[in-house]
Order: sequence, then structure tokens, then C-alpha cells
Amino acid sequence: MRDVYIVGIGSTTFGRHADESIESLAVGAVVDALIESTVDRGDIGALYLGNFISGPLNGKEVLAGIVADRIGLPNVPCTKVEGACASGGIAFRHACMAVASGEVNAAIAVGVETMTHAPTKQTTAALNCAMDNENDGPSGLTFPGLFGLAWRMHADRFGTTREHVSAVVRKNKGNGLHNPLAQMGAELSDATIADSLPICDPIQLYDCCPTSDGAAAVVVVSKAVAEKLSATLKHPLVQVLAAVQTRGSPSIGGHADLISFDATVVAAQRAYELAGVSAQDIDLVELHDCFSIAEVIDSEDLGLVPRGQGGYWAHEGRTAVGGDVAINASGGLLAKGHPVGATGLGQVFEVVSQLRHTHPNQVQNARIGMTHNLGGAGVACTVSILRGVQ
Amino acid sequence: MRDVYIVGIGSTTFGRHADESIESLAVGAVVDALIESTVDRGDIGALYLGNFISGPLNGKEVLAGIVADRIGLPNVPCTKVEGACASGGIAFRHACMAVASGEVNAAIAVGVETMTHAPTKQTTAALNCAMDNENDGPSGLTFPGLFGLAWRMHADRFGTTREHVSAVVRKNKGNGLHNPLAQMGAELSDATIADSLPICDPIQLYDCCPTSDGAAAVVVVSKAVAEKLSATLKHPLVQVLAAVQTRGSPSIGGHADLISFDATVVAAQRAYELAGVSAQDIDLVELHDCFSIAEVIDSEDLGLVPRGQGGYWAHEGRTAVGGDVAINASGGLLAKGHPVGATGLGQVFEVVSQLRHTHPNQVQNARIGMTHNLGGAGVACTVSILRGVQ
Repeated sequence: MRDVYIVGIGSTTFGRHADESIESLAVGAVVDALIESTVDRGDIGALYLGNFISGPLNGKEVLAGIVADRIGLPNVPCTKVEGACASGGIAFRHACMAVASGEVNAAIAVGVETMTHAPTKQTTAALNCAMDNENDGPSGLTFPGLFGLAWRMHADRFGTTREHVSAVVRKNKGNGLHNPLAQMGAELSDATIADSLPICDPIQLYDCCPTSDGAAAVVVVSKAVAEKLSATLKHPLVQVLAAVQTRGSPSIGGHADLISFDATVVAAQRAYELAGVSAQDIDLVELHDCFSIAEVIDSEDLGLVPRGQGGYWAHEGRTAVGGDVAINASGGLLAKGHPVGATGLGQVFEVVSQLRHTHPNQVQNARIGMTHNLGGAGVACTVSILRGVQ
Repeated sequence: MRDVYIVGIGSTTFGRHADESIESLAVGAVVDALIESTVDRGDIGALYLGNFISGPLNGKEVLAGIVADRIGLPNVPCTKVEGACASGGIAFRHACMAVASGEVNAAIAVGVETMTHAPTKQTTAALNCAMDNENDGPSGLTFPGLFGLAWRMHADRFGTTREHVSAVVRKNKGNGLHNPLAQMGAELSDATIADSLPICDPIQLYDCCPTSDGAAAVVVVSKAVAEKLSATLKHPLVQVLAAVQTRGSPSIGGHADLISFDATVVAAQRAYELAGVSAQDIDLVELHDCFSIAEVIDSEDLGLVPRGQGGYWAHEGRTAVGGDVAINASGGLLAKGHPVGATGLGQVFEVVSQLRHTHPNQVQNARIGMTHNLGGAGVACTVSILRGVQ
């Protein structure tokens, strides 16, 4: 497989875009990424679009072809990929694979979702398409239920407290204040978090990511193309050291233990191996904190924090910008927002900005970054490792 | 890119499966394909699932991971791909590319859709997700409208008559009578077709494919794996000479001329070039006859019939089994049915059966076959060329 480089990124703000169509959001992100990349749109060989629920919420599919048409891309394969909340990460991986395999020399990955225009009941029903409804439906378990259970098990096993988990919320909401793309950065107290609306004990409102609209895109190219572009690019290259996709159980009862998701553990192991780096080499990560407790679990599954220590590390500031490893310097899903299909590409956008040393909440001397996108009840996962070429 | 071989195929009947879940249909097809392939499920490296509207119609997504879980596949990338009616063909191409690129040695492509359980109004709304609603919505054009327009233009330009197009319907409905997987084979007279319910002038009811449930799957492997399996396989190998994916305009007004779809023309050209064969070498084709007139246009776009002659050839029996080129010996979408996401894989299933010389409506001495899957208003297309290794 060939080396792959990221030469352009684009993103809308994450939040409310109720007046814009889903395709216009995606087009905006792609055009920004293309302009920055200095790649001629005629040289793009493939487009992958990550999206989860545009069918149920917008009555719109074949978005990959529609977006390509609006931009005037040539007649190349344009494919929507779906893996629930991991759809964006899957789009990124497929664009990388198309270049790595030699099939094309330049590809676009874009993720997009619009959700805020729909009534909450309809949005919730659409989000539940990510569940294994045949198995988990009759049990009454929902996603807040899954993460509520996981939290209780983690607390029982490792002594993780409300204060530990609140530290994740405070950190990410605080990071979001520095990120102009973020939907809801905030300075929160432990009391405000603990006293917010109960959702599914022990999960309170501030433990949940918001409903969001948004799009993010990247342009990936082969080494030969990247070298040719060096004369026109205004920013350093970022190399894709690994882009891994795995699967786990789709059903909540299918996991041996809810304090860990196999799909993440395996994806991280494969990514470290492919990239030739270890967890200690990771300067920052954008990981899938759909709920606050998810960050605790993910940070352990990725090997960045010792098992059981995720809450303690957050509480001690070791996962803040400037700590041992910067987790969700962007604000993460909790503060930046979670336009589902866009999230995985939004993570890549954030990590690339960090590795170019142009992030508004910059991690000093960031050299190697990671993204982690998890779908459904752990059924689909992507992990990528990126390296800044300074 | 490496050679790719098809070693297993599976399919449900196409028609009504109102008592079965969408995942159980897909699992059935995959298990049949796996058993026939003699590939150990532990050796499968990737699964691609083509599906269009399970979100709106079933409230279910992440079907790729769910199907893999039910079958007990290992922890490998499982991805749903979507390109409206071409979703199945796109899944096939991606499984082939995963093997061709050297990423994996064996992969599964499965397509599935369930539609008959939903009220007609809901199904129609879901199918319209394949339109470019921003552009074509306000014009009031629908898919029958698109193909009605195309018919009128074709008739005006080339003298194509009701009788010519009815010959397509009679042929495909008749072929369907020989196919035990087909939903509605029938012996029809010209009068019955012409007098059937008017849908969108000049399109009558029998010019339209039915609403269907169904699933189809194939197992593709590398040459090395295919050679190893030769001791256990009970049927000849089928080689994938080409698996091409293209895009065209998503909107009806975006086509220069409705008597042709660019995406098909370009896909066929690329496929012939990759396969090193010409249109004259194609013994049979399963093409995308969502409406009767679509077969006329597709047969010309694929270069199998001279431009403007599609209707005439059908009327003269030149596209029947035993004619110059056998088109839709399975019954096609018109008679076999059109469970949208499954259709592209169903076409591969049919062509492989023909190239193994085991088809219930066998084309004598079939050696090279083609599939053609078209999505939306021509926005996504796949064409593959397969060769029987006798």
C-alpha cells in the first residue's frame, strides 16, 4: 500500500444550520478543502460521503453523487458509506484506501448530517436506527441506557465517581470555548453538571452530546501528488500513518463487558501496528465522547490511559491540553457537537489543524495525533493515526 | 490490481417476505453463498452491504455490522454502501476492489431490501430519496415521469412504438416464468400490456417493475484462494474481468438528452477496456430495466444494440435467449423484481449461474456476461463483466 497525505481540510461550524440544505453544507466543506488543497477538481478520482440518517430526516439519499455534481467533479465513483456514528470515519478510511491501493491519486472524504430541523421524537427515532432493534429493542435499552449501564459498571469496578466524569464534561465544554467551530462550549461547575436534567441515571443532560448540523471534508493524495503540490500548498503536509476500520457486537447484550468496546481495542492495536508507533507517542486524540463516560472508556480502550484510570486522569487534568495526552482539545462531541455523519471527518479536521500547529486550542509541539469514531452500540469503529510533516 | 474470482453465490426469492426481518433475508443469502464457496467464514476479510432505504422503511441501519455479527464473521470492516438503485452493484464493486487491491483475500458482497411491508405512500416517498429533490422536486417530475419523457423522446427520434416496448415486457415477463427466484413471470399479450393501468403516459402498469423484498450475496476471492478451493468447489470459477462504478447527473434536467445516460455509457466503455473484450463478446447481460423503456435505452448505452435500435431488436427477438445477445434472461427487474439494494447482487447471481451453465433459463454456450445497475436519475452506475472459467 502507498503512503497517503492530507493536503486540504474544510469544515462548517457544528451547530444549527436550519436554513441550509444538507447538500449545501457538504458542498461548502468540500469546496473549502479543495481550495486549500490546491488540487484541481478534475484530478479527483473518488468521493466518499459519510452520512447516517439523511433518508429518515431529509428524504434524501445518493448524496455522494449529488455533492459531486454540485462541485463539478468528473465522472468518478461517488459512494455514500454508512456505519451509524462511525460513518464519517469510514468515509475517511475508504478515501485513504482508494489512494493507498493505487486506484486513484486523489480522493475526497466528506461527512455530513442535519438533525436540528426535525422534531426531537423523529430525530431520536432516526438515531435508534443505529441499534440492533431485533435484540435490544424488546429490552427497552437505549443509547443513554447503554452508557448509563457502562458508567455504573465502571464505577463499581474502578471507583469512578460523578466528580471524575464531571471533569470530562468540564474539560470538553471548556475546550469548546476556544473552538470557533464548536456548538456549545461553556464554563461549567460540578454542581451545574450534577444538577442538570436527569436523562438516564447516572447520566445527566450535560453528560450527553447535543443534536447538531454540520459537515467536514478532507482531500487525500498520494505521495507523488503531495510532492508536486509542495510549491502551492500554504501549510505542512499531514501523513496518514494508519486508517483502520473494525466491527464489534451490534447489540448491547453482545458485549462481554460494558467497560470496554472490542471494536475500539482491536482498531487501536491494528492502528499502532500499522503506524509503527505506540500509545505513548500520541500527543493528542479526538475520540468519540458521545456521552461523558464514553470518553473515560474510549481513552482506556485506545491504550492512552491505564484501564480503570480514565476518570482519575481527567480529574487530575492529565487529559487536558498540556497534560499527558490531550483528549478532545476541540471540545469533542460533548461541546463541538455531533452531526453524526460529519463527526469522524470533523475529528480529522481538528487533528490536522493541531499537526499543522494552527489550532485555536493548540497542543504544544503536537507531532502525532489520533482519531476515534465509534458507531451504534460498538458495532463499527474507525481509528486513524496522523503525523505532521514539519 | 489482482485477479478476482466469484466462488459462491446465494439469493432469496425476490417477492414478498413480509414475515422476515431485513437482516434475516441478508443472512440467508450470505450463508448460502458462504457454504457454496467452501470458504471458512474466519477467512473473510471484509463485508460490503448494499441497501437503499432500510432507514426510512425499517428504522434499521448499520446492517453490515449486524449481518456480520449474525453470521459470526471475524472482526473485519463491514460497510453499508448506498447509491440508490445501484447500491448492490456498488457493494459488489467494493468487495472486488478489496480483493483486487490486495487488502483482503476473500470478501462478501450482499444486497438487501424489504419494501412490501410498508404502505405504498411510504414506499414511494422512500424511493423518492433517490431523486435530486432540490432541483427536480419543484418540477413535479418523478421516476415514472422521467422514463415517460425518455420514452417520448426515444419514440420521436427513432420511431420506437408501443409494440416495440411491449416486446421488452413480454420477453422479460416470459423469462421470469422460467426463473424460480422471480416475483412475477407471466405470459402477456400486447393488448394486456397496453390496456393495463396508466401510470404516467405512455407508461402503463406492466412497464414498471414491482415492489419487492429480497437479498442476494456473492463471495469473491483472490486467484491464490480460488486455486486452493478448486479441490472443494462443486462448480466452475467465474472471473471478474471488470467492476466499474461511475456517476452521472443526479437531476433530470442535468442530462443533455434523455435517450441516454452518461453514467452507463462511460461505465461500459471503461468495463470493456478493463476486461479486454468488446460488446460483441457479451453473450448475456442483466441490465437495469426498472421501466420497460429503460431496457431499450440501457441496451444502447451499453453498446450491445445500435443507437435507436433497442425497441426494434426486442421486437425482432434479437434480445431473447437464443438471440444476438440475451438481455435479462432472469426476467430482469420487470419480472424478477426490484428489491432495490439487492438488485445489483441479484444480477451477479444470475450471470454467474449462466456462466456456470446451471441457469433455469440457460443461454447456450454462455462464456462472458455483463451486469448493469443504475441509480436515481442516472446519478450512480455500475457495470461488471464476468467470464466463466470452464
